[in-house]
Amino acid sequence: MADSKKWVLMATAQTPTNIAVIKYWGKRDETLILPVNDSISVTLDPSHLCTTTTVAVSPGFEQDRMWLNGKEISLSGGRFQSCLREIRSRACDVEDKEKGIKIEKKDWEKLHVHIASYNNFPTAAGLASSAAGFACLVFSLAKLMNLKENPSQLSAIARQGSGSACRSLFGGFVKWIMGKDENGSDSLAVQLVEEEHWNELVIIIAVVSARQKETSSTSGMRESVETSLLLQHRAKEIVPKRIVKMEEAIKNRDFSSFAQLTCADSNQFHAVCLDTSPPIFYMNDTSHRIISYVEKWNRSEGSPQVAYTFDAGPNAVLIARDRQVAAQLLRRLLFFFPPNSDTDLNSYVLGDKSILHDAGIGGSKDVEALQCPPEITNVPAQKYTGEINNFICTKPGRGPVLLSDESKALLNLETGLPK
Amino acid sequence: MADSKKWVLMATAQTPTNIAVIKYWGKRDETLILPVNDSISVTLDPSHLCTTTTVAVSPGFEQDRMWLNGKEISLSGGRFQSCLREIRSRACDVEDKEKGIKIEKKDWEKLHVHIASYNNFPTAAGLASSAAGFACLVFSLAKLMNLKENPSQLSAIARQGSGSACRSLFGGFVKWIMGKDENGSDSLAVQLVEEEHWNELVIIIAVVSARQKETSSTSGMRESVETSLLLQHRAKEIVPKRIVKMEEAIKNRDFSSFAQLTCADSNQFHAVCLDTSPPIFYMNDTSHRIISYVEKWNRSEGSPQVAYTFDAGPNAVLIARDRQVAAQLLRRLLFFFPPNSDTDLNSYVLGDKSILHDAGIGGSKDVEALQCPPEITNVPAQKYTGEINNFICTKPGRGPVLLSDESKALLNLETGLPK
Repeated sequence: MADSKKWVLMATAQTPTNIAVIKYWGKRDETLILPVNDSISVTLDPSHLCTTTTVAVSPGFEQDRMWLNGKEISLSGGRFQSCLREIRSRACDVEDKEKGIKIEKKDWEKLHVHIASYNNFPTAAGLASSAAGFACLVFSLAKLMNLKENPSQLSAIARQGSGSACRSLFGGFVKWIMGKDENGSDSLAVQLVEEEHWNELVIIIAVVSARQKETSSTSGMRESVETSLLLQHRAKEIVPKRIVKMEEAIKNRDFSSFAQLTCADSNQFHAVCLDTSPPIFYMNDTSHRIISYVEKWNRSEGSPQVAYTFDAGPNAVLIARDRQVAAQLLRRLLFFFPPNSDTDLNSYVLGDKSILHDAGIGGSKDVEALQCPPEITNVPAQKYTGEINNFICTKPGRGPVLLSDESKALLNLETGLPK
Repeated sequence: MADSKKWVLMATAQTPTNIAVIKYWGKRDETLILPVNDSISVTLDPSHLCTTTTVAVSPGFEQDRMWLNGKEISLSGGRFQSCLREIRSRACDVEDKEKGIKIEKKDWEKLHVHIASYNNFPTAAGLASSAAGFACLVFSLAKLMNLKENPSQLSAIARQGSGSACRSLFGGFVKWIMGKDENGSDSLAVQLVEEEHWNELVIIIAVVSARQKETSSTSGMRESVETSLLLQHRAKEIVPKRIVKMEEAIKNRDFSSFAQLTCADSNQFHAVCLDTSPPIFYMNDTSHRIISYVEKWNRSEGSPQVAYTFDAGPNAVLIARDRQVAAQLLRRLLFFFPPNSDTDLNSYVLGDKSILHDAGIGGSKDVEALQCPPEITNVPAQKYTGEINNFICTKPGRGPVLLSDESKALLNLETGLPK
């Protein structure tokens, strides 16, 4: 190890979030985070939803420290400790000749790390912030400490931070295999297809509420396992068959099957939440309205155009068959859920704004002029102004990447503290 | 048969509604209305919620006719026809010496009936109006036509009008045995205990919305049977065990078990609705709020004080352990859901008004002065003015009765037409 206490070595990575289309709900092992069933997710484009994490090591650091969205948080939790322990035990020699830094494998146990993480979307609002967060923590530390493990092996470490984090180690469509081993070594993620495989898909997220959710997914899941009489039946009898069908649908880009399975599995996950004692409600009336509109539209079209899925919160994740459908979907969403009069359209529709252009919407005048969709028969249709905070237009995206541009780092290269 | 075409013979009956505490959801035979599982209900006091039906027969009637809440409705539906056919086939000799009327068994096939029915509560708002309605139709026709069948045998006829109607043929707690026969002859209701057995219970119904519901229970149930992968598991594996436990709880007046089973089964029924494709939402945000308050209160008390159950609509049926708890419950409900400023308290809390008195509430000033319940920690608590249409205070009640007072008849004794 270099003897100067001054040096700081850093790595910065960007990791996507993911949304499950076959849901993970229920652990068979709380500590190792081993699930009761396989799950499948789509990785979301990190340009619109991602976590950026910088990790740094320096002989001058006196303890492991972490900052989330600029605020220091405790690393004492078992989940952080599990990830740090698992990564440190796999760390390898690192040498930066330019800076004259050499860290040997055995040194890592004594060195402390600083971690700074930033989500470009609201934390704990049902947008899988912990998934992207733990995936990014593990990925960036693995780069810093020169781990030789492949992404699947890293996913088994990220899993111990937050179950769904393991699926954020890949782009495209990802399967988390539940595994059989008691030590969890075979409970890891694999990529099903890359994001280019099905690049017609467009995803629109309706952010219904950015308030902190009432029941965390960790405690909700535990209560479901302990009290729902439907959960085990779902995990053992229903999900295994759905996983096979979903893999097939993704492989064949069969949107009808994909949408049918995605919607049914989202609804069944929320059904299990409702079957929990006390019952857990993640969806609200706005979520229900969105489902009803999508179901009505899909039925009127004769085949599914849009799939919906909801995680542990009221936000709708809507997956459109293609750009053309996405534009029509956005028109419908803006018709039913126009922004408040004081909300600028530019801050109401975020992400890939070209969908707005495709929808022929340039300003609030265009939103006001939207006609009621033809499938709505009970006119005048009711509008729900202000029920949606904003929409995010995105698409399936790539997995984690290392950011070599040091200007993107969240920690100061001199001090190792947040910029 | 008397040869004068002038005479009209009538019978008027009053039949209670009922609310299931172990739910009926799913038919194994659509025509005979045979369920996929047993169910258990509590009969509600007919002084507050009931159907009154007058049936009349006259050689002057040219066809079967029916009026519901003053408006003529068609009797051509299969369910009405099933009930009428089953009852006519069992009709016996009737003689009214005073009026000089004699109808022989064989005459009934040729005679037409007039039926007038009136609900003292909103129709099709999830308050089991069809249950009370068909039970009253069958009960009053059975009296008019002098059927020898006992109430259980009559329940098997009422069942063919509306499944849950069979449970309205008795007071107290009632079990609908699903039966095994293909012809449905053993799918009927039996009384578990009379209403006096557990007369401490007080029931408060929160009428969340009296709008017509979107998905009728008939079509909802069919869609659940066809598409929910959880329904059969519930029907075959879960409900049979719950039925045994619920009978035990009722027999022993074990409120804790009763409440736990009632709430869990209501939630599971709604979970199956959510697992249906397209999903069915009967509860809304107001329903969810009521559940959350009750769960929080029950937890803070250490043992359940109040059970909740929701049928195919957003209305909450709350069953309080005793009068004292009911008064506390009403105070809490009025705190969270005060009436609109233009709503009189007297039209906001209906039914047994003595609960209002027990709650120490004499007028709107008292409602405004209500303190936040101690179990609510995030003060100031949010209030939801206007989300509830009204509350109905009631209790377990008796089964159908014949009303001998002719002034209560809904049909004119001279014309056989609605008064």
